[in-house]
Amino acid sequence: MKYLNKIALIAGLMTLPSLASAQAAETPTLEDIGFIFNTFMFLVAGFLVFFMAAGFAMLEAGLVRSKNVTMQLTKNMALFSLASIFYYILGYNLMYPGDGWSIDGVLGAFAVTGLEPVGLEGAEPDLTYASVGSDFFFQLMFCAATASIVSGALAERIKLWPFLAFVVVLTAVIYPIQASWKWGGGFLDDAGFQDFAGSTVVHSVGGWAALAGALILGPRIGKYKDGRVNPMPGSNLALATLGTFILWLGWFGFNGGSQLYMDTAGNVADISRIFSNTNTAAAAGAVVALILTQLMYKKTDLTMVLNGALAGLVSITAEPLTPTLVEATLIGGIGGVIVVFTVPLLDKLKIDDVVGAIPVHLFAGIWGTIAVVFTNDAASLGTQLYAIIVVGIFTFVASAVVWFILKATTGIRVSEEAEITGLDTTELGMEAYPEFSKG
Amino acid sequence: MKYLNKIALIAGLMTLPSLASAQAAETPTLEDIGFIFNTFMFLVAGFLVFFMAAGFAMLEAGLVRSKNVTMQLTKNMALFSLASIFYYILGYNLMYPGDGWSIDGVLGAFAVTGLEPVGLEGAEPDLTYASVGSDFFFQLMFCAATASIVSGALAERIKLWPFLAFVVVLTAVIYPIQASWKWGGGFLDDAGFQDFAGSTVVHSVGGWAALAGALILGPRIGKYKDGRVNPMPGSNLALATLGTFILWLGWFGFNGGSQLYMDTAGNVADISRIFSNTNTAAAAGAVVALILTQLMYKKTDLTMVLNGALAGLVSITAEPLTPTLVEATLIGGIGGVIVVFTVPLLDKLKIDDVVGAIPVHLFAGIWGTIAVVFTNDAASLGTQLYAIIVVGIFTFVASAVVWFILKATTGIRVSEEAEITGLDTTELGMEAYPEFSKG
Amino acid sequence: MKYLNKIALIAGLMTLPSLASAQAAETPTLEDIGFIFNTFMFLVAGFLVFFMAAGFAMLEAGLVRSKNVTMQLTKNMALFSLASIFYYILGYNLMYPGDGWSIDGVLGAFAVTGLEPVGLEGAEPDLTYASVGSDFFFQLMFCAATASIVSGALAERIKLWPFLAFVVVLTAVIYPIQASWKWGGGFLDDAGFQDFAGSTVVHSVGGWAALAGALILGPRIGKYKDGRVNPMPGSNLALATLGTFILWLGWFGFNGGSQLYMDTAGNVADISRIFSNTNTAAAAGAVVALILTQLMYKKTDLTMVLNGALAGLVSITAEPLTPTLVEATLIGGIGGVIVVFTVPLLDKLKIDDVVGAIPVHLFAGIWGTIAVVFTNDAASLGTQLYAIIVVGIFTFVASAVVWFILKATTGIRVSEEAEITGLDTTELGMEAYPEFSKG
Repeated sequence: MKYLNKIALIAGLMTLPSLASAQAAETPTLEDIGFIFNTFMFLVAGFLVFFMAAGFAMLEAGLVRSKNVTMQLTKNMALFSLASIFYYILGYNLMYPGDGWSIDGVLGAFAVTGLEPVGLEGAEPDLTYASVGSDFFFQLMFCAATASIVSGALAERIKLWPFLAFVVVLTAVIYPIQASWKWGGGFLDDAGFQDFAGSTVVHSVGGWAALAGALILGPRIGKYKDGRVNPMPGSNLALATLGTFILWLGWFGFNGGSQLYMDTAGNVADISRIFSNTNTAAAAGAVVALILTQLMYKKTDLTMVLNGALAGLVSITAEPLTPTLVEATLIGGIGGVIVVFTVPLLDKLKIDDVVGAIPVHLFAGIWGTIAVVFTNDAASLGTQLYAIIVVGIFTFVASAVVWFILKATTGIRVSEEAEITGLDTTELGMEAYPEFSKG
Repeated sequence: MKYLNKIALIAGLMTLPSLASAQAAETPTLEDIGFIFNTFMFLVAGFLVFFMAAGFAMLEAGLVRSKNVTMQLTKNMALFSLASIFYYILGYNLMYPGDGWSIDGVLGAFAVTGLEPVGLEGAEPDLTYASVGSDFFFQLMFCAATASIVSGALAERIKLWPFLAFVVVLTAVIYPIQASWKWGGGFLDDAGFQDFAGSTVVHSVGGWAALAGALILGPRIGKYKDGRVNPMPGSNLALATLGTFILWLGWFGFNGGSQLYMDTAGNVADISRIFSNTNTAAAAGAVVALILTQLMYKKTDLTMVLNGALAGLVSITAEPLTPTLVEATLIGGIGGVIVVFTVPLLDKLKIDDVVGAIPVHLFAGIWGTIAVVFTNDAASLGTQLYAIIVVGIFTFVASAVVWFILKATTGIRVSEEAEITGLDTTELGMEAYPEFSKG
Repeated sequence: MKYLNKIALIAGLMTLPSLASAQAAETPTLEDIGFIFNTFMFLVAGFLVFFMAAGFAMLEAGLVRSKNVTMQLTKNMALFSLASIFYYILGYNLMYPGDGWSIDGVLGAFAVTGLEPVGLEGAEPDLTYASVGSDFFFQLMFCAATASIVSGALAERIKLWPFLAFVVVLTAVIYPIQASWKWGGGFLDDAGFQDFAGSTVVHSVGGWAALAGALILGPRIGKYKDGRVNPMPGSNLALATLGTFILWLGWFGFNGGSQLYMDTAGNVADISRIFSNTNTAAAAGAVVALILTQLMYKKTDLTMVLNGALAGLVSITAEPLTPTLVEATLIGGIGGVIVVFTVPLLDKLKIDDVVGAIPVHLFAGIWGTIAVVFTNDAASLGTQLYAIIVVGIFTFVASAVVWFILKATTGIRVSEEAEITGLDTTELGMEAYPEFSKG
């Protein structure tokens, strides 16, 4: 059979099983094309950010001790799944509350997410943006990432179900409300706050929620003893490194997709700038942590290098578009500095953050939000600080209230015995590496 | 150098090494654009589905005992490679047999896959669809996924080469023939059977082939003893979780790409619906398994949560487009229920499915195929059941015949001693984790 | 809220925080569309190639012994980060030196990479190609891949910082200079040398640099003793397999993106050909290694299968477009043959290449470069050989000079004691798997 016939044949066959209205082959109109570009861009960026869920899971599974790995994996799988459900039930519409909390707005804000009809039939979509489904898909991944940040910090001692209850409140209510202030066109947006992809809206929020949890939960048994910090090394640095590379990959979607439009030469060139700057900042964070730990401790510290890369990524997230490559290097590099100095600082304060989530996402997130003023004329330092503080107070207080309620009712911490034995056998009855004996 | 010169320069340089006809810079025509969108969509969806091969490999490597990990990895790498070869040699054209098995059709059906000429030179492609190469690439990945399903169920006791021989028959003949009945415009398609991305055509087919193999192969030594089920826990749940996340990621391509067209606003909005529904169903399957195992066993079971997510994905695969998010939640959630109840059921029947492939792909695949009738008016319950039965009988019988022939000739099962010692040292002479002692 | 209002609403809200010039919703012009396609293609291909950094890291971490895993992970994270910095500081412009090393050209060649302005404002981009940012992002990943190749070969005995110093010279100077000869429009390009995606320009260059290093560094202690080759099996074949799958995935971007244009039906159909051929060659390499090791050693060897797949990929990289699927099978299959026969050959020569990087990237790279002549009429055997030799001599000599300088100054090899104990505890003070005892 000649390829020509083949092509015609396949095209013909393929059309048969289609929904006539939706799948029939058509030539796109020039109007459609921008919509297709924007929507497809959201889907591609969205699946990259989705994959960050795997990145967080691997990073955290690698940085906890082997006796708690199954629990950490379970939490990560469960938190992403719960976020996926509760964000559509409540979060997404709450984040875009529409016409100023009027009665209509309130009804809309508490509605379940509805997608456009199949084939857009009967719809009159605004072809200058993207499909609702793609926007929902993309935004969901940001919400889920926020919850992932919390899970690492509180590892090795928190109970499964209270943690998941917190995740539900975070993803359905806390995250969407504060995100609406900026990305839902709320008062922070009106005030001129600049946060391109969420150094504050996503990362510091995850960090604040983690900080509140870490304070209320307390450190792991034996972590701080007799004035010394007892290192509790992660069980699998290969997984932790894999997780970091996956997060780095996902970040191209995270920052790139936040351009929101890919329908002009200018927009796609901007996405290219964002990809290049995002990569550069991550690299700079890693290199700085590499060099600094060598200088300070005479030995490079891989977990610091990994967190340095992540801090570089968080730092550039508030403004990945306007910096030059050199500026991106500086912004990301300072993120690396922050990690190297604040990880031990937290230990001095006896705040036990198992994976370094608070330095990476909160401290570098604050830095990134401030750094916007150096490269984006639209940002003012006062407004950036104002937003950092408002979002910080709201998230910290709301999270603390939830953590306290959970502590008072179900309890949030496993028994001392369970913590020492390991959560996998005591809470789940399932080891992650049952055949590998402990050294 | 100013960037303007730079751009012109690069553009100039880049054009130099090009094939003049194919790579020279041109402005696309409006006619080309739909073709480019459809083709590129297939390539992106295709590489996502490709990555599912890694997902299956990690899932299975994590769920077998460490003494069989190298074998499981070898099988996964080999089965994908063999599928890639035999699907182009025979499968692809067999799946699209063209004009009704006339003499021309037969000649075409047994031809090696040919791609369009370089640069489409001299070709008159149907610009309303996509390039043959992209369609082949995308369809191949579905065929390979079918084989991956089988490998997990039969792990820890099947011989390498007979298994690979089965894979060749499955991917070159069994899968393509039954796939042609629906996706090749055959009699199931004529009958109105609805299976958007293959709950039946892919997943149940893999499941039936695995079931036939598991019955003929028999359970692992010691699995069912004295009326009790002896648990044989997986050696690496971190890998199993990674595999599940990778499969989840790949499923966006699996279901999304099955829209086949991205050339209009309606089509890309549909792909967005599919992404959102696919994610929601996976999440629902995981959450249901999480809650059910907690209620039934007082402890959540991570492997059930992973399989719950996968069952949710399989369940939505027959119709990821028409459901609302709430309906997708229900469809996926019931997939989770199925897994939790049928994994122990198979054990009661002494059918030893190492990774839970039969519950996930066969049982949830049947459910997903039936569930189409709830949201897609074009589907009738009778036709769906008819297709489930026809495909089931064909695949089960054809697979059983092949398994029996292999059993009678080469044998399909390793020696008792090899099974107890582990396939890695006895069959391959290579351990996956040579330095980690067994507990 | 109806979805219609919702769409309008979101579109409205989303536009608010935008940079008016860059993000405002617009209908694309027909002129823009080709530019958008090309640029987006580079970004997608680029993130796939980026992910190869994770693939190399996992492959190498899996193939070294557990006492050197942290070091191997650190090197991979660090080398990618350093490449990201030094390629923009020097490499990228050096690779596209412009108007023949005139004074202007020299100034340009030593300039830091500058991206187009935000929103292309004030720029007059050549809309027939792609954005500078996307080209830079894509090209960077090739440069980084070259360095990754070196790191595997020299594992388990090289010092961290001298290795990283070599990486800086390789990515900033050696790689860009020789790449400019072909892809920068230099004399090899003028001579008609054909190397589509870099069997020579990337893979053999990494291989030559690794060979120079391996010779100067010498084999691991105990590897070659009393005329026998002492096997030193990798610690984690699951990771090695994952790494191979990730590399395979990334290669779709590596070869597909090297089409450079996706703005016409012909170009996107070519990318489809490339995807299909790339996959076929990898599969063929794996299948050949599978069968050959079974025939030769009576047992299939997973590490050979993995390297066979990679050799298949390297072999098709010089010309992934013009072959038919059958030809791609042959080209990739011969790659598999090369690996199976040259891995033991290197051992005979007492050249200790820990992961098989020299057979895979250098030998298969040479084969792939020669194989171009069989399917691409534009290639002549003489020119291909000429380029292989010129690039080989330059890279080998330049690399050797750098290795010698490093050896003479800082030293490049860890102490005997450190090598025997393992680099993780002695050089880094951090084990990758601290809880898993050694068998």
